[in-house]
Amino acid sequence: MKDSRFAEPLMDKDDVAAMVLAAKKRLGLSWAQIAEQTGLSPVFTHSAAMGMNSMPEAAAKNLVAALDLPQEAVSVLMEYPTKVWDQAVPTDPCIYRLYEIVGVYGPTMKALIQEEFGDGIMSAIDFDMVISRVESDKGDRVKVEMSGKFLKYNSW
Amino acid sequence: MKDSRFAEPLMDKDDVAAMVLAAKKRLGLSWAQIAEQTGLSPVFTHSAAMGMNSMPEAAAKNLVAALDLPQEAVSVLMEYPTKVWDQAVPTDPCIYRLYEIVGVYGPTMKALIQEEFGDGIMSAIDFDMVISRVESDKGDRVKVEMSGKFLKYNSW
Amino acid sequence: MKDSRFAEPLMDKDDVAAMVLAAKKRLGLSWAQIAEQTGLSPVFTHSAAMGMNSMPEAAAKNLVAALDLPQEAVSVLMEYPTKVWDQAVPTDPCIYRLYEIVGVYGPTMKALIQEEFGDGIMSAIDFDMVISRVESDKGDRVKVEMSGKFLKYNSW
Amino acid sequence: MKDSRFAEPLMDKDDVAAMVLAAKKRLGLSWAQIAEQTGLSPVFTHSAAMGMNSMPEAAAKNLVAALDLPQEAVSVLMEYPTKVWDQAVPTDPCIYRLYEIVGVYGPTMKALIQEEFGDGIMSAIDFDMVISRVESDKGDRVKVEMSGKFLKYNSW
Amino acid sequence: MKDSRFAEPLMDKDDVAAMVLAAKKRLGLSWAQIAEQTGLSPVFTHSAAMGMNSMPEAAAKNLVAALDLPQEAVSVLMEYPTKVWDQAVPTDPCIYRLYEIVGVYGPTMKALIQEEFGDGIMSAIDFDMVISRVESDKGDRVKVEMSGKFLKYNSW
Amino acid sequence: MKDSRFAEPLMDKDDVAAMVLAAKKRLGLSWAQIAEQTGLSPVFTHSAAMGMNSMPEAAAKNLVAALDLPQEAVSVLMEYPTKVWDQAVPTDPCIYRLYEIVGVYGPTMKALIQEEFGDGIMSAIDFDMVISRVESDKGDRVKVEMSGKFLKYNSW
Amino acid sequence: MKDSRFAEPLMDKDDVAAMVLAAKKRLGLSWAQIAEQTGLSPVFTHSAAMGMNSMPEAAAKNLVAALDLPQEAVSVLMEYPTKVWDQAVPTDPCIYRLYEIVGVYGPTMKALIQEEFGDGIMSAIDFDMVISRVESDKGDRVKVEMSGKFLKYNSW
Amino acid sequence: MKDSRFAEPLMDKDDVAAMVLAAKKRLGLSWAQIAEQTGLSPVFTHSAAMGMNSMPEAAAKNLVAALDLPQEAVSVLMEYPTKVWDQAVPTDPCIYRLYEIVGVYGPTMKALIQEEFGDGIMSAIDFDMVISRVESDKGDRVKVEMSGKFLKYNSW
Amino acid sequence: MKDSRFAEPLMDKDDVAAMVLAAKKRLGLSWAQIAEQTGLSPVFTHSAAMGMNSMPEAAAKNLVAALDLPQEAVSVLMEYPTKVWDQAVPTDPCIYRLYEIVGVYGPTMKALIQEEFGDGIMSAIDFDMVISRVESDKGDRVKVEMSGKFLKYNSW
Amino acid sequence: MKDSRFAEPLMDKDDVAAMVLAAKKRLGLSWAQIAEQTGLSPVFTHSAAMGMNSMPEAAAKNLVAALDLPQEAVSVLMEYPTKVWDQAVPTDPCIYRLYEIVGVYGPTMKALIQEEFGDGIMSAIDFDMVISRVESDKGDRVKVEMSGKFLKYNSW
Repeated sequence: MKDSRFAEPLMDKDDVAAMVLAAKKRLGLSWAQIAEQTGLSPVFTHSAAMGMNSMPEAAAKNLVAALDLPQEAVSVLMEYPTKVWDQAVPTDPCIYRLYEIVGVYGPTMKALIQEEFGDGIMSAIDFDMVISRVESDKGDRVKVEMSGKFLKYNSW
Repeated sequence: MKDSRFAEPLMDKDDVAAMVLAAKKRLGLSWAQIAEQTGLSPVFTHSAAMGMNSMPEAAAKNLVAALDLPQEAVSVLMEYPTKVWDQAVPTDPCIYRLYEIVGVYGPTMKALIQEEFGDGIMSAIDFDMVISRVESDKGDRVKVEMSGKFLKYNSW
Repeated sequence: MKDSRFAEPLMDKDDVAAMVLAAKKRLGLSWAQIAEQTGLSPVFTHSAAMGMNSMPEAAAKNLVAALDLPQEAVSVLMEYPTKVWDQAVPTDPCIYRLYEIVGVYGPTMKALIQEEFGDGIMSAIDFDMVISRVESDKGDRVKVEMSGKFLKYNSW
Repeated sequence: MKDSRFAEPLMDKDDVAAMVLAAKKRLGLSWAQIAEQTGLSPVFTHSAAMGMNSMPEAAAKNLVAALDLPQEAVSVLMEYPTKVWDQAVPTDPCIYRLYEIVGVYGPTMKALIQEEFGDGIMSAIDFDMVISRVESDKGDRVKVEMSGKFLKYNSW
Repeated sequence: MKDSRFAEPLMDKDDVAAMVLAAKKRLGLSWAQIAEQTGLSPVFTHSAAMGMNSMPEAAAKNLVAALDLPQEAVSVLMEYPTKVWDQAVPTDPCIYRLYEIVGVYGPTMKALIQEEFGDGIMSAIDFDMVISRVESDKGDRVKVEMSGKFLKYNSW
Repeated sequence: MKDSRFAEPLMDKDDVAAMVLAAKKRLGLSWAQIAEQTGLSPVFTHSAAMGMNSMPEAAAKNLVAALDLPQEAVSVLMEYPTKVWDQAVPTDPCIYRLYEIVGVYGPTMKALIQEEFGDGIMSAIDFDMVISRVESDKGDRVKVEMSGKFLKYNSW
Repeated sequence: MKDSRFAEPLMDKDDVAAMVLAAKKRLGLSWAQIAEQTGLSPVFTHSAAMGMNSMPEAAAKNLVAALDLPQEAVSVLMEYPTKVWDQAVPTDPCIYRLYEIVGVYGPTMKALIQEEFGDGIMSAIDFDMVISRVESDKGDRVKVEMSGKFLKYNSW
Repeated sequence: MKDSRFAEPLMDKDDVAAMVLAAKKRLGLSWAQIAEQTGLSPVFTHSAAMGMNSMPEAAAKNLVAALDLPQEAVSVLMEYPTKVWDQAVPTDPCIYRLYEIVGVYGPTMKALIQEEFGDGIMSAIDFDMVISRVESDKGDRVKVEMSGKFLKYNSW
Repeated sequence: MKDSRFAEPLMDKDDVAAMVLAAKKRLGLSWAQIAEQTGLSPVFTHSAAMGMNSMPEAAAKNLVAALDLPQEAVSVLMEYPTKVWDQAVPTDPCIYRLYEIVGVYGPTMKALIQEEFGDGIMSAIDFDMVISRVESDKGDRVKVEMSGKFLKYNSW
Repeated sequence: MKDSRFAEPLMDKDDVAAMVLAAKKRLGLSWAQIAEQTGLSPVFTHSAAMGMNSMPEAAAKNLVAALDLPQEAVSVLMEYPTKVWDQAVPTDPCIYRLYEIVGVYGPTMKALIQEEFGDGIMSAIDFDMVISRVESDKGDRVKVEMSGKFLKYNSW
């Protein structure tokens, strides 16, 4: 929500994200520990706490209680966000590598998804993700599991 | 490899990709069936056959034999590609959704990977991916499993 | 499909689109008349004939028969397209006005959809559209009716 | 209107938008309910309240009264806006899908409009839009109805 | 219209534009002289001959006769064009200066048009233009007269 | 002029533009009425008052007197501006239509100007413009008259 | 001029540029020597021969005679070019350095020109340039002398 | 230098530029007069005073004394700047014309420099520039003289 | 970390960078001298102090002690940064030259690395760099030594 | 050099690059082996053979002899190239990593070079590079050694 010079400022998702990060640092919590409080996965908890998703009411209440945030933060966490990113091509190496994977393997993923399911897409809305560690003698690996509902193009 | 008006044209990865697609259509094969021939996964097989990766020699020979391609295609499949994509933001909906996931969840993935592993990245080079179907009463889901070696930033 | 200098060219969606336009001109047919032949709506018929969608088999056969296209065109019409557009901001005035509507009313559409349905989107995949004429003394109007399934963001 | 360090700040459309959103939240009103107060449609009411259109005087007075805004807001709502959007390609998924529809179906819409009406465009100025819900067993659908006056290119 | 490797090429607007320019050079005609043949203004005649507008049937027949073009060119001149320009910012100095005028005076033109007419725009569709010479001792001047119908935003 | 944290702020063209707009609103003046005070045309008066041109001294004094601005504003109005616009492609529909006219008719304007005058351009510096209303039964029209000195390319 | 599949190709400026370069190589001439033939400076001779300027008739005839080009090249050299460059930021280091000079010193050049001459610009149309060598013990220097008519903004 | 909310602000080049401009206006000095004080050319003096170059110590002291700036400004003027410009294509007409000259004549300048000197560039680092007035009956001209050391590509 | 209007500001990497630069200036230290304090190389010390890398705890404590920064700066220096750069093409000449080297020699570096090591990349994560001076009679040279672990593409 | 439809095609650097790659493949040579023939380093040999640098005459003759290329290739290798790259941000991972290094470490390299040498740059013209392998138990490393003459900004 925009500020007005003619009215009191309202708390917004950026405010809450900053308060969450400050509380997380002060309390020494990991995202996994915070996620246990919300009852949601670490991925979704982080995303909603940082303002990229709307948090269900129960989870928002749990988060506010666990981090001792002001009550107004509950409704802010529940607001429907406008998802904006500034960099069409991300520069941070950890995020760029994901972008690169889409660039290199995007046409392959499309070909295999559509050969298996028909003409359509993997939803990015009815979607979930888990990130975990796979131990290995050659160096541990990051495992990313994404799952999205297949949506078929309709004809009419 | 560039063509020259002063020398015979050499077969390149675009030529092989077109021949693979023509043979695949003619033989009625799926990528899974072709991958069985190469001994590699469907994801890597497609990617290398389309020219975005270099295929190991044994797999290249198997592919050429299975699809009855000219022998020259073996060395072309083995060449190290220059990975180029034209659209910084892909337009095809099936690929755009993957891009969107990176835009929405990229900062979350970075935060969780780095909290778990330390300051570093998931490699896009020492990397693999599997795509599969998860059946569900509410509509089948596409499952994407990525795994990349964690690489830690060094200080010096 | 890419051409190869080392194999016969395969018919692709651009070839079929050109043949459809040539036949349409030769036969003096409107898109509405062609759509009657395919059994699909004019919007979808045009989109699939021009290569931006895959046509169901029955419709493709009807189209090929009605326009006297070569049989190979049936399978080409059925192929799953890669949807590409070159201009991030379209220049043709008729298309730009649609882009402008998204620019001006996009945030409004988001606000009203999400207030009515919850946090989510109107699908562009499970989607249909009708274009019609509304007569008026002040000048006839173009009516565009779009309908897309509401997809709700899930949390996990 | 720009601020000056040498004069008192004037209320502008951003100020009013923020005040409207704050009042809407405080009063627990939906856009449909606010639109009943203005006597205009929800689409136009939202667009004008957020600063993307100028509100007729009667509607502006109604809105200011209904939301208990300062009187100065009436003239601000009536000002003619400069319509600016920052993202040539929108990132929010709910708005991007609309952009994608223009990318995929824009040439089709042009072809069908011009075949029906002649060489010209659907106006984005003499234009209106309604958004509604269509219930369905397979999942409710968002319906968007746009109507714009057909404008014919003239020759001279 | 796109070419197909599987069908005869059709004449398109680029072909006609090239034939017009070749005939114009061969016959030593000015655009003003050609416009006298079409019965339209020089601006519209040039624009339609170069493929950026559709020419009315009578004018197209006149042009084809006057320049001794093949009969097929009549229908091509009458086709509804897709207006595409490649350079968002034009580089040719003669065209760039026009772009610069829009950059410098665009907000002024908007302010004065809207103060005079209300919230709306000057149409670029119901539009005409004349270019002429104004003699002056200090150096002759180019005069550009544009006229477009005022279109008022509607509310609904 | 940039501000410094180590010196008093100086009034700049943005300050004056804001003061002019505030005074215009307070006094209920139109641009035509303000232009009568400056002795310049409405187009140039608006452009210079908004900071896109430098105002001659006499006009600046008249403007400051008429709108009761601080005396410092005279020299600020007289400063030579740096002309900057942020949007390579403007989004406001009233300005975009002007941009579209340049896109569609730019090559035509170049061809006709150069055929009449020789190889050169219409100056955007030695330039003037008038905007007026043309009444019409079919709807009033905006008339834009631009005049710029023809500048011929020299060879050397 | 565009080619047409329905008419003979016409010689254009690209053709002439290629023929000039081929003849220059065959005859072992420098641009200074060619310029002596045209009677114009090396800068203008190169620019017009490469298609970025129109060559006066006498010079064009001289060039065609000196390089033994076909007579048709005379009129092509005299045509008024459309000046197009593809790279908004040039990559070749020799050209980039010139771009960098504009980036670094552009605001300085503007300030000094306008302080000396008043509000206006150095023309790029009524313009000339000489490039020469300045010998120096510390390494020879390239000298670039540009001269353009000062054009003053008018007010009206 | 960036500000910190946790430390006192340090004077930076933007601060000094603003102080120079304020003093210049207060004292009624031209850049030529200021340059006499610094002992450097007007071009370099302006560039360094505005923060695009580092000023030698003696000149910086002279400037600070002449304009009565705080002593801290000496070291700030001497700092090595990061040269940043925001507009890849400048919009101000006086600067754009310079950009246009690079676009039109860049390849010509490259060809003539390299024919004279061999494969290499004109340095933009070991570089100087003078701007002067050339009087003429046809209108005075701006003269720009640039000189840069020729740098030859090495092979190894 | 983002600020919140509803909580105390937290020190972030920009704050620390500003404090480091202020202390460096006050104490008259070079980066080499600071690096001696941290026990890390000058390149890494600068990069981490400016916020582009995370500093190991011991080094951070040393830096804070040596420059007399507040204790809170230790944990800020240790935070994992998000690496962001604003200019896809850098404008500062010293940095642009590095970009240019990548543009000119990037394909060469790829070809030689891959011929020597196989299909893969030089890591930018497991990476180090040293910058030094090489004295020479023809002018001293900057030497940049980069070293990155070779990472081989895997197939699967 | 551009082709002309009115003259025989001339061999250009793209032709030679293709012939070099074909000969290299046919002869089974590495770049190191080819460089031994030219007497230049592998980096420069590859760069000049691929058309990004001009090759000294002796080296060009050696290359043409060693690879059995036509004699015309000697002068083509010696031509001064126009260095063009299409991707402002390279997509191939091996090249992107180099771009990323410039993004992350560019400001650091600038700070350390300028602290050591004064205000100036590392030349990309008087420049050389060596790429080598450093063996290591933890995985071999790519070593890149760049050396460029320091160029100091002059003041005047």
